[in-house]
Amino acid sequence: MNEHTFELTEVTGTSSSSIEDAIQSAVSRVGKTNREMRWFQVTEIRGAIHEGKASQWQVTVKIGSRME
Amino acid sequence: MNEHTFELTEVTGTSSSSIEDAIQSAVSRVGKTNREMRWFQVTEIRGAIHEGKASQWQVTVKIGSRME
Amino acid sequence: MNEHTFELTEVTGTSSSSIEDAIQSAVSRVGKTNREMRWFQVTEIRGAIHEGKASQWQVTVKIGSRME
Amino acid sequence: MNEHTFELTEVTGTSSSSIEDAIQSAVSRVGKTNREMRWFQVTEIRGAIHEGKASQWQVTVKIGSRME
Amino acid sequence: MNEHTFELTEVTGTSSSSIEDAIQSAVSRVGKTNREMRWFQVTEIRGAIHEGKASQWQVTVKIGSRME
Amino acid sequence: MNEHTFELTEVTGTSSSSIEDAIQSAVSRVGKTNREMRWFQVTEIRGAIHEGKASQWQVTVKIGSRME
Amino acid sequence: MNEHTFELTEVTGTSSSSIEDAIQSAVSRVGKTNREMRWFQVTEIRGAIHEGKASQWQVTVKIGSRME
Amino acid sequence: MNEHTFELTEVTGTSSSSIEDAIQSAVSRVGKTNREMRWFQVTEIRGAIHEGKASQWQVTVKIGSRME
Amino acid sequence: MNEHTFELTEVTGTSSSSIEDAIQSAVSRVGKTNREMRWFQVTEIRGAIHEGKASQWQVTVKIGSRME
Amino acid sequence: MNEHTFELTEVTGTSSSSIEDAIQSAVSRVGKTNREMRWFQVTEIRGAIHEGKASQWQVTVKIGSRME
Amino acid sequence: MNEHTFELTEVTGTSSSSIEDAIQSAVSRVGKTNREMRWFQVTEIRGAIHEGKASQWQVTVKIGSRME
Amino acid sequence: MNEHTFELTEVTGTSSSSIEDAIQSAVSRVGKTNREMRWFQVTEIRGAIHEGKASQWQVTVKIGSRME
Repeated sequence: MNEHTFELTEVTGTSSSSIEDAIQSAVSRVGKTNREMRWFQVTEIRGAIHEGKASQWQVTVKIGSRME
Repeated sequence: MNEHTFELTEVTGTSSSSIEDAIQSAVSRVGKTNREMRWFQVTEIRGAIHEGKASQWQVTVKIGSRME
Repeated sequence: MNEHTFELTEVTGTSSSSIEDAIQSAVSRVGKTNREMRWFQVTEIRGAIHEGKASQWQVTVKIGSRME
Repeated sequence: MNEHTFELTEVTGTSSSSIEDAIQSAVSRVGKTNREMRWFQVTEIRGAIHEGKASQWQVTVKIGSRME
Repeated sequence: MNEHTFELTEVTGTSSSSIEDAIQSAVSRVGKTNREMRWFQVTEIRGAIHEGKASQWQVTVKIGSRME
Repeated sequence: MNEHTFELTEVTGTSSSSIEDAIQSAVSRVGKTNREMRWFQVTEIRGAIHEGKASQWQVTVKIGSRME
Repeated sequence: MNEHTFELTEVTGTSSSSIEDAIQSAVSRVGKTNREMRWFQVTEIRGAIHEGKASQWQVTVKIGSRME
Repeated sequence: MNEHTFELTEVTGTSSSSIEDAIQSAVSRVGKTNREMRWFQVTEIRGAIHEGKASQWQVTVKIGSRME
Repeated sequence: MNEHTFELTEVTGTSSSSIEDAIQSAVSRVGKTNREMRWFQVTEIRGAIHEGKASQWQVTVKIGSRME
Repeated sequence: MNEHTFELTEVTGTSSSSIEDAIQSAVSRVGKTNREMRWFQVTEIRGAIHEGKASQWQVTVKIGSRME
Repeated sequence: MNEHTFELTEVTGTSSSSIEDAIQSAVSRVGKTNREMRWFQVTEIRGAIHEGKASQWQVTVKIGSRME
Repeated sequence: MNEHTFELTEVTGTSSSSIEDAIQSAVSRVGKTNREMRWFQVTEIRGAIHEGKASQWQVTVKIGSRME
């Protein structure tokens, strides 16, 4: 952080396999148009239940990226 | 939520009539340029007071929309 | 509160008209099997968005009722 | 806010009709002796239940007023 | 959520393998007597330490289920 | 906690003598129908005031009990 | 609460004997000039340590009183 | 704190120069009518933006003063 | 706030001199592309430590700006 | 506090008799090796339940002590 | 917890593979000099992003250990 | 953060001049015995009031340092 300003973008990633995968998927999606991502902070972990099982992980993260 | 990523946009809507109307107004404004809104979460309810009356409702919401 | 114990039940009521109506609806539903409800506390206000409008109010409340 | 100091007064307004009305009622009551109120912030929404219905809205607000 | 009321049940699931497994285990247990579960929200992640290792994951979730 | 699931029940106990007694009273009441209680966590301490004195202690606790 | 407005006054009571006594002492002090106190809510429990012992209990409460 | 009761007054001080100055200004204003102030706790830091610059610091503090 | 909607943008400003300067720097950066900024709220104050000294102030703010 | 630095140590004290006793016990234990303790702040109150009774009070406090 | 006092140590563990692994790694590190660890509580989940991927999990936990 | 574990130490620094100075002073004090400090996070800003002025800034920070 060398005197730059960083923007925090809040997104919810989803995955049927794991919490880490839901985060990875959110980071990948934001990375399509943003090449300056540096860190993330988890703000919420939720999920859907289908037929008696946790069927989807929904993890909300704030992604910090350097403003160019 | 079928493996998509959702973005959370935080906005404050205002209205002179009610809390619901302030939210509806924020959703309408964001909807002008975003056709993928799915849900909202209220994060703060405030307001202005004028001549001894609550004259404006200011409601902050996070709007979740699917990233296309 | 005369030395009784009170149970807190957390429920989410829904309504297409207003926040108050969503709460009223949750209280009515719980009241079908519980005749000792005394108070409620709002813990979250959310909602669904459909075709660019807040189409449903989802209000979570804790309902306090006297244990008989 | 032109270099003034503002005092925050926390009050609970009540109403049998709506959340907005409970707030309006609190603002009116405080306004009887305070003519410098400027804004409010909701800190809690609760209510009483009577005969299976939400019979009273109890909304706590902090009212900001300019110190004369 | 079509004008239904949903109940939130708070439970702590445990597992010796992972956070996801502790949640899955809590959902399965509640599902034995409740066939209307829809979603969960994580409220706390803790665990036991035995012989210098995290030996058990204890994850508390609120499970939302439709009241029939 | 040996791979069991635990349910959290939130209750408010009351007492005219002390905070500990209000908790003890809530635990006793829940214990009438639940023999698997293991721990509690205090979530709120309030009370009633009558004739210028704190006349009743109202303590809210979450009681964790093993699901059989 | 019959359509009245209630004011919340935040005070810290102190005592060398117990938490309950610190609260009782704060309620008594406020009661000297306010005869409409109805309830209190604890917001913080702290204390001083002197010669290796907790020597004073300092409990902060919000006291709700009816505005006349 | 020798068995006294302390009152907490919440105020927002403002300044065009710094956060410390906004607090100092709030303390000075409250001190005009209160000679028993002992400590303060910051509860919020906000500000106004004018012509692309933070033009005013608005700092909310709770001021603890001994009740005489 | 005359019935407009306001967007909240969360950014982290950095500075080697002070907290105020880190905020000023974040406001300036956002102002390059946004001419409708009105207020900010501090959400976190952190910093880097280098050779035993706080070498950089990192302040996160939400900036409120009117949606045109 | 004359320009000193204070360290906060977080500990959980336990007692079978009362909340105050659990705190006193934590302070005594820390005091065995630390003679500069000045204040404490309660961060959590929990307890164990045995045979239908709250059998142990577990109170977590942060203890502030002057760094020599 | 048999009338002992427990100390809470807050540490951030890191791992390139998973959240559980970051916690396990923090527990192992603290365990090198502390043989009385009993439980942990997660207080924050963050991470670093490198080349468009979550490259490191950083999990902060409070570890509770018995004071000997 | 290359797979290391970091310890968080919570301290309150004091200064009669500014918030930044109180933090700098806490960092310097901890640095006397710890050469691996990397970052800090502010958790509380308080102060003492003497003769109607904020006479001392008391800032609590968590200091993160690499465990060697």
